[in-house]
Amino acid sequence: MDKTSSFYSHEGKPIRCKAAICKKAGEPLVIEEIHVHPPQAYEVRIKIVCTTLCHTDLAFSKYDSGPLARFPRILGHEAVGLVESIGEHVDGFKHGDVVLPVFHPHCEECRDCKSSKGNWCTRFAEDLVSNTRRYGMASRFKDSMGEDIHHFFFVSSFSEYTIVDIAHLVKISPEIPVDRAVLLSCGVSTGIGAAWRTADIEEGSTVAVFGLGAVGLAVGEGARLRGAAQIIGIDINPDKFAIGKKFGFTDFVNPTLCGDKKISEVIKEIAGGGVDYSFECVGITSVLSEAFLSTRTGTGKTVALGINPAAPTELDSFGLFRGKHVCGSLFGGLKPKLDIPILVDRYLKKELNLDSFITHELKFEDINKAFDLLEKGKSLRCILWMDKK
Amino acid sequence: MDKTSSFYSHEGKPIRCKAAICKKAGEPLVIEEIHVHPPQAYEVRIKIVCTTLCHTDLAFSKYDSGPLARFPRILGHEAVGLVESIGEHVDGFKHGDVVLPVFHPHCEECRDCKSSKGNWCTRFAEDLVSNTRRYGMASRFKDSMGEDIHHFFFVSSFSEYTIVDIAHLVKISPEIPVDRAVLLSCGVSTGIGAAWRTADIEEGSTVAVFGLGAVGLAVGEGARLRGAAQIIGIDINPDKFAIGKKFGFTDFVNPTLCGDKKISEVIKEIAGGGVDYSFECVGITSVLSEAFLSTRTGTGKTVALGINPAAPTELDSFGLFRGKHVCGSLFGGLKPKLDIPILVDRYLKKELNLDSFITHELKFEDINKAFDLLEKGKSLRCILWMDKK
Ligand SMILES: [Zn+2]
Ligand SMILES: [Zn+2]
Ligand SMILES: [Zn+2]
Ligand SMILES: [Zn+2]
Repeated sequence: MDKTSSFYSHEGKPIRCKAAICKKAGEPLVIEEIHVHPPQAYEVRIKIVCTTLCHTDLAFSKYDSGPLARFPRILGHEAVGLVESIGEHVDGFKHGDVVLPVFHPHCEECRDCKSSKGNWCTRFAEDLVSNTRRYGMASRFKDSMGEDIHHFFFVSSFSEYTIVDIAHLVKISPEIPVDRAVLLSCGVSTGIGAAWRTADIEEGSTVAVFGLGAVGLAVGEGARLRGAAQIIGIDINPDKFAIGKKFGFTDFVNPTLCGDKKISEVIKEIAGGGVDYSFECVGITSVLSEAFLSTRTGTGKTVALGINPAAPTELDSFGLFRGKHVCGSLFGGLKPKLDIPILVDRYLKKELNLDSFITHELKFEDINKAFDLLEKGKSLRCILWMDKK
Repeated sequence: MDKTSSFYSHEGKPIRCKAAICKKAGEPLVIEEIHVHPPQAYEVRIKIVCTTLCHTDLAFSKYDSGPLARFPRILGHEAVGLVESIGEHVDGFKHGDVVLPVFHPHCEECRDCKSSKGNWCTRFAEDLVSNTRRYGMASRFKDSMGEDIHHFFFVSSFSEYTIVDIAHLVKISPEIPVDRAVLLSCGVSTGIGAAWRTADIEEGSTVAVFGLGAVGLAVGEGARLRGAAQIIGIDINPDKFAIGKKFGFTDFVNPTLCGDKKISEVIKEIAGGGVDYSFECVGITSVLSEAFLSTRTGTGKTVALGINPAAPTELDSFGLFRGKHVCGSLFGGLKPKLDIPILVDRYLKKELNLDSFITHELKFEDINKAFDLLEKGKSLRCILWMDKK
C-alpha cells in the first residue's frame, strides 16, 4: 500500500497529477498534468494503482461525432485503485480501501437494483452522457489552463487520480493481486457473468462463443467452471486457438476455412444438432444471426454481448417459434457490488483463471503502445502500472 | 360415456364413420363416410366426443401450396375423445379412457423429453409432414373409393373416429366436462403455458398481450392466476375488451386509436416505463418488434406465440443490448402429458376460467358454420358435438 505523505495530505483540496488526455479523435493520447477536484457528495477520489484498456477505449479514442464524442477527455474504465478521500454521504468506503471502478452503475436503491432480476439500474444506467453521475456535465478534471476535461463512462482511469461515484465503485479484498483484480473491472467479468448469470450454463452443456477477445475467452472460462462438456470457439484469428485452450475451449472453428458452409452448420455438426448456448462477442449483426442459428431447437439460448446498436437484430423466425431464446447481457448481467466480490473469491480459491488474460505489462507513460498492441490484436490485456519503478 | 355396442365391437377391424373432409383449398368441408383403420403399434383409435377449431384449421383449409398443403384431408386438432381400441406397445391407455389429442408430440423418451428444459421433442417434433407419427405418409383413413385421405398434425379430429399416436395423446380425469377439457387441447393451454412456463410471470408483474384471440386471452388468464398487477390487452377489435375483463385484463389499447404514437409508447406510459412481459399472439413481424419495444429495459421479456416464419424477426438492438429477452413458445412450453393434467386440476379446483372461452355450440354437421363464425371474428371457441341429439 502506498502510504507516502502525498497520498494522505490532499483531502479536501485539488490534487495535481498526471493523466493521459485524448485531445482529438484518432490522435495519440498526451500525458499532461491535470487538477483533480476533491470528491463531492456520493463521490470518492481514488488513486489508480493499475489500469488496462479494452476495445471500448480504442473505439472512443476515434469517434468524432455524436453526444458521446467529446474532447479533451480522460479515457480508461478498467482499473484498481485505493481510496484517497471521500465526499459527503459516502458509507462503506474509507481511505486506503482497495476498490474497483465499474462503468455500469449499481445504486442499490432503485426498484431494479433491489430486485433479484437483471442488473439494469433504472435510476442511473440510462444516462451515458454525463461527466459525473449526479452532477450532469460538471467535470472533476481541469487542465493546466483551468479548462474542464471530460470524463469517460464515470471512471476515467487513465489518470493517477480520478473521481468515481459510489454507484460505480466496488470494495474488494486486498488479498487479490491488483493486476488480477483489474481484469474484473470490465471485460472478464462481463464474459464470466454472461455464462453464469445471463445464460446460467448447466453441467454437461454445449457452448459456442463467437469472437475470442477477452470477453469471449472469459465466457469460455465461465463455461469451463460450470462443467460444460463442449466449448467451441469461433474466430478468424487462428492465434486465438492456443490461448483458448487455457480457458477450456475444446473445439475451434475458423470461419475463413468453412468454405461454402455456414458457420452455424459446422457448429451443428460438431455439437450434434446445435449448442445449448451461443454467445456473440463481436458486435456484428450477421454474426448474431448465425449464433442464433447455431443453437439447439426448442431450448437453445443465444446471449448477445457485442451488439451493434445501429442495425436491427435479425433472427430466424422459425427457430424463434420453435422455442429458442435470445437476450442481451450488459456487464454480464452482474450486479457489480454483489457479484465482483464473488469473482474475487473464486480467484483466491484458485478456481478462476485470470492469469492467462495478461499478455503485456507497461508503464503508464507507454499507454500509446498499449493502444497499438490492442488495435493490432497482439494483446488480450496489457497492465498499465501507474507507479512502476 | 358411450357404451353402445358399436363402440365396442370394432376392435382390430376398420370402422365406418362420418368425417368432414377438406377436398380442395378454400372450399367448404364435405361430410362423408370414411373408413378408419385399426390402430397399429403405438397408436390408439379414439371416438371423438367433441372438437373445436382454431385459426390453424382455417389457415390450412385454404393453403394451396407447399409440403403441408395436401388434399383430401381431415382437419381438426382440438378435441376430446374416448379410447376405442389400442395397437401393440400401447401402455397407459385402455378402452374407455378419456383422452386429449395434442398436435405437439411428447415421446417421453428422447433427450429433450427427459430434460426438464423446454418442450421440444427432438425425436418427433421436427416432422410436421407425415400423416402418421411413426409410419411416414401411411394414412389410417380411406374414402368410399378406397383412396387415402391425409391426416392433419397427427390429430384429424373432424371425424367420428381418428387414429392418434401415443406421443400425441394425454389421458385426463373423467371428472372434467368434455366441453371444458377440449379447450386444453391447443390454444388455451398454449396461452396459459406461455404465461406460466415460458415467461414464468411473478406476482405483481406488468403484462402486455398483443392480440386477444383465445391464445391471447388465455395468456391473460395465466397472468391473472399468477397475480399480475397489470394486464394490458392490445387488439383492433373493441369487442375483445369486454371479454378480456373476464380473464383479468385491466387495461386495453386499440392501436387504431393511438394516433401518431407507437403502441409501445402508449404501453410504456400505462405501465410506468415498460411491461415486465409482453406476448405476441398475432403472427405479424412488426407487432413482435413493438411487443419487444414495450418491455422494461434490463429485464423485460417478450414471448412470441404467433410468429410468421416467412419473415425474419427484427428487434431493436439497443434494447437487446440492455438486457431484454425474447423467446418463442410452442404449445406454451408445456410438456403435454405432464402439464395438461395440471391444467385440468386447476379447472376442477375452480381456479381456471375455461367457461368464458366458449361462445358457441353446434352439431358436427354444422362445422362450416363454425368456420364462418371464426373467420368473421364472432367466436372464440365453438364446441362441435359429434353426437348431439
Ligand atoms: Zn439502481
Ligand atoms: Zn471494457
Ligand atoms: Zn421426445
Ligand atoms: Zn389450435
